[in-house]
Order: sequence, then C-alpha cells, then structure tokens
Amino acid sequence: MDIALLAHEKFPDEAKTALGILRYSDDTVVAVLDRDSPDTRVHDTVPDVQDAPIVASIDEVESYDALVIGIAPIGGGFDDTWRDDVRTALKAGKDVISGLHYFLEDDEEFAQLADEHGADIWDVRKPHDDLTVAQGIADSVDAEVILTVGTDCSVGKMTVSLELARAAQERGIDAEFIPTGQTGIMIEGWGNPVDRVVSDFTAGAVEEMILEKGNDHDYLFVEGQGTIIHPAYSAVTCGILHGSMADKLVLCHAAGREAIHGYESFALPDFSTYRQLYEDLARPVHETEVVAGALNTRSIAEDEDAQAAVDDFADAIDAPATDPVRFDPDTILDEVL
Amino acid sequence: MDIALLAHEKFPDEAKTALGILRYSDDTVVAVLDRDSPDTRVHDTVPDVQDAPIVASIDEVESYDALVIGIAPIGGGFDDTWRDDVRTALKAGKDVISGLHYFLEDDEEFAQLADEHGADIWDVRKPHDDLTVAQGIADSVDAEVILTVGTDCSVGKMTVSLELARAAQERGIDAEFIPTGQTGIMIEGWGNPVDRVVSDFTAGAVEEMILEKGNDHDYLFVEGQGTIIHPAYSAVTCGILHGSMADKLVLCHAAGREAIHGYESFALPDFSTYRQLYEDLARPVHETEVVAGALNTRSIAEDEDAQAAVDDFADAIDAPATDPVRFDPDTILDEVL
Repeated sequence: MDIALLAHEKFPDEAKTALGILRYSDDTVVAVLDRDSPDTRVHDTVPDVQDAPIVASIDEVESYDALVIGIAPIGGGFDDTWRDDVRTALKAGKDVISGLHYFLEDDEEFAQLADEHGADIWDVRKPHDDLTVAQGIADSVDAEVILTVGTDCSVGKMTVSLELARAAQERGIDAEFIPTGQTGIMIEGWGNPVDRVVSDFTAGAVEEMILEKGNDHDYLFVEGQGTIIHPAYSAVTCGILHGSMADKLVLCHAAGREAIHGYESFALPDFSTYRQLYEDLARPVHETEVVAGALNTRSIAEDEDAQAAVDDFADAIDAPATDPVRFDPDTILDEVL
Repeated sequence: MDIALLAHEKFPDEAKTALGILRYSDDTVVAVLDRDSPDTRVHDTVPDVQDAPIVASIDEVESYDALVIGIAPIGGGFDDTWRDDVRTALKAGKDVISGLHYFLEDDEEFAQLADEHGADIWDVRKPHDDLTVAQGIADSVDAEVILTVGTDCSVGKMTVSLELARAAQERGIDAEFIPTGQTGIMIEGWGNPVDRVVSDFTAGAVEEMILEKGNDHDYLFVEGQGTIIHPAYSAVTCGILHGSMADKLVLCHAAGREAIHGYESFALPDFSTYRQLYEDLARPVHETEVVAGALNTRSIAEDEDAQAAVDDFADAIDAPATDPVRFDPDTILDEVL
C-alpha cells in the first residue's frame, strides 16, 4: 500500500508515529506532509529509515492509497488546520487512518465524505466492542512472553520490541510483535489500543492478544507503554505488566532523560528502583525478571560516548544492555531467548 | 428521596451496592426487590442498616421516587429477568438509577419509555465527556488526602472511607468522601466511575475530583478500588494511587481471605509485601505511608475472635488496626488526622 503521512509542523522530532511507520512499516511512504519543511526529503534529517519527499499538502501527492495521521498531539485532539488534507483525501476516495483520541469516523463531515466517495476511515485507537476483564491466564500459552518496560514515556519501548521481534525472525525463530499503541497497530495492521480501553479492561485487552497469538508462536514481544511511576499513565503500564504475565522484561531508557517528559517536576528515580518496582509488582501475579536493558542514545553524537552510556546503564540495572537501533539487538536477544 | 432497591436472588450476601445504600445513603429505602426472599425484611438477615420490606417485584411497591439497581454482576451486564421491574418503574414515571457497565439509557426500549413517561435514567457508571489525563497536581490542594488501599477487591475500602469521613465529621472536622465506584457515587449523588473511564484517564479522573473538592475541606477520604496485585483490575488501583497523590494510606483486608476473589489460583502475598508495594510504587509520584489497617471481620462470629484477628493484622502490617464497622473507627482516625 502507498501511503501519505501527515506530520505538519512536527517532523521529525515530534512525529513519533510517522517515524515508526517510516522505519518499520511494510507500506511504501510516497510523501510526508509538513508545511514547515516543503521541498525537502526525509533523508535530509533522518537517514536510517525509508526516504520520501516532504510536501506542504496532500494536493501535491499524485498517487497514494491512504492518508495516515502521523502525529499524536498531547490529549489526542484533531487540529483543524489538517482538515483540508483529510477532506481532499476522502473526496478522492482514499482511506484515512488515524490514531487520535478524536475519532474521525465520528466527525460528521468526514463520515459523510467517506460515505459519498467510498473511502474508509480507520480509527485505530477505537477499541473493539468485545473487550472484557482479564482472566489471569496469559501464562497458559506456549510462547515465552517478553515485555518492554520503561523509565518514562517516549523512550523507545515499541522500537525495542519491534527490533527484537525482527532480529529473532532473522535468526529463524518464530517470533511475533504484540502491538498495544496506535503506531504499533498502524505498522502491524491489528492490535488493541490499550491506552484507550475501559480502565477495568486494561489487563484484559493485553491478555486477549496473548491468548490469540500465544499458541501459534514461540516468542511474543509485547510493546510496553508509559512507566510504572508516571503521574498520569501508570495505570496503563500496570495493566500491561499484569495482563501480559510476562516471563522476561527489557528495561528501556532514553539517555539523558532525568525527569518525566512533560511532567518535569517529577525526577526519575534510580534505575535500580525501577527494576525492583517492576519485578516486585509483577511477582504476585507472575514471577518475572529484568533480563536486559535498552538505551536510546539518539541524543548522543559519538558512538564512543553512546557505548560508554550503555555500559553505565548496564551497570546500574545489573543486566546486559545496548542500543538496539544504533548498535544491534543481539546483546538483548541473547538474554531473552 | 424514597427508593426501591433491585437485588433479585442476591440479597444480602452478593448485593454489595444494595447493602452500601442501606447502610450509608440519606435516601429512604422503601423496599428491596428479591424474588428469592419475598415477605421477609432486611433486618431478618442484616440488623445494622436501615430496615425495609423485601418483596418479589416492583408491582408490590406502592410509593417510591426511584428504582435503583442494587446488584452488580461480574461483567456488569443487564439480566433480562429484571426488565419487567425497570419497565414498570419507567412507565410510572419513576427514575431508574443503575451502576451497570450496560447503560440503560442506551437500551432502546428503556430510552423510549423514559422519554414517553418523563422518567430519568441515570447510568452512574457513564463517565462525563470532559475527562482527560492527570496533570500530577493533586498535592496542590489544601486538604490532607487519605486513600484506602486493599489486599483484594470486596474487602471494604468504600465502607472504611465512608466510616472515617463520617467519624471525622462527627468530631467537627471538615471531611469529605471522594467516590470512585458505582455504589459510592449512588450514595453521594456525584463522583467519577474510575473503573469505567478511558485507561489513559484513570489517574486524571481521580485528580479531577481532588482538585474540585480539595480546597473546600480539610480532609478528603478517597475510596480505593481493587488491589495493586489484581490480575485484572490493578490498573485502576495504580491510577488511583498516583492520581490521588495520597498523603496517607489505610490498608484494608477481609479476615480469612487467602486468595484473590474469583481468581483463586492467585494467593495473597504477605501483608508486609502489600505495605511495601503501595509505598514504594507511590513514592516517585508522592511520598506516602500506610498509617493504619482496617480488617473486615464480618466472617468471624465472636467479638473476642475478631479482636484477636485485628491484633494479628496490626502486628503484620506494623500499624494500628481495627474493624471500623464492628468496633469503632477511632483507632484509625487517630492515625490519619
């Protein structure tokens, strides 16, 4: 499928969804929409993902199958300056895919345009209707379950889970990625948006996916969310930890991060505190262990400095660690398999 | 307001909502509906709450203002054998109040009957539309925040919070109860159903209530939910712990409970484990402490045995404890004020 990625005024640094799709999707990105950077290319700022031209609006994209909203502002609202692009796509009969909390299919104009022009709107963050409470049986599947947990939001948990699943597949191992957030769902084409389900069903939404996939594969790499000490999002993290009944954990951190992103008055505790919290909290439901760490070193210029930061992180969490994007995921993979 | 309480086949042992209303509501219960126990009275089985006749259907209730669904089956569905009672109430122009996950106002027949006969349907578990993520500022209010936390579901957290708030008020202290579940909301007439909100908004739904009430009172007694080690519901517990930024915790337990209710393969850990988990998990967001324990001794016949169980519990959690319903709440209140 050929897709156009909407990322106005946010590409690349604040366009987590767009970057995830550019890096991992099997779809071809034919254009990125960012009115702040017209006539440039993705590779001008992000060299290690698929390349695409950056244009100011969807009018400049000649041929595509779907328009994907590639940014997710805090709160998940729809920015009305995007309306022209979405309108144009729907009028051309193109599908529109969105991970916003604001559901495009509930927008009267968009719903009508989609109907008139035979276009589909896929709100990936809209949970399906049959979700329910967890039964506490995710550990009954054959697969080994590996969950990424974090020191904060936006430290790379989805990336690490995807990198590990793909590296395992390259070794000939039957591994599957379990998506829990909008970007992962867009990349894989399925999954439950765990941060958008009824709070009572948080663990159940994860368990459902594990029961669905867990007997068809040898390893499941579950995408974690948030952090267990987040002032706003810890509920989701806790539900995933208990609902997944993970056998092994990979602790993810972004080098240099010292406070909760967007909640700067909350300092991050020691790495050893995280390790202990995740393990102690999981234990009464399912015994688990932090077996490795993943450090996002994007903010560090030199490889040598990045390696030093990785070594410090490994010492602090008392487990092997690496940056699976900058270096390679083998160090972690050897611990989880 | 005069209310009729629907509790078919479940009164009293499995009718938590009905019992809570009978014990704490300012409304007058004119009848309990239980087709299994017609021609009996509440006081035949539960002596320490307001008394009411038990009848087989709403047809036998002469005068009332509202019908309240007083039972909450696992999953929160609507039992179609209750339809006649609800239909009869709506046709008589009486309001219907429900805490089910299944929203009665979305039921076509009920919605139409309510409309035709000028009756209101209040689905207390339907969250309001303006909920959003927590800001991490619940500690900015003037009031001291006291949260009940539990070793399991259904151990008496709502009861303990209500007993403490009322005992404080009787001492002339300006205290307020913060309801987070359907029964508490029905008793108080307001509140956010925290187990029914979008998972990302769990902490936010609690924070919103604390910000609304926290500068008008000296103490807020927040109703806890679930337990932090619940295989299905821990997300809600975690969101309340962090969203409330509680200054003090009261650990609640039901004497004799050894495994998670309904999830019997999960043994309860030591009480010291709970204390440590709640305190360690809260600390990075807001420092707090388990200052007292509340033991539900309903299952113990003799007061002397109940007191012995309370003493053991106090030793195990290393804090003063009592059963605030059987004895009195002063032991706990002295610790939290």
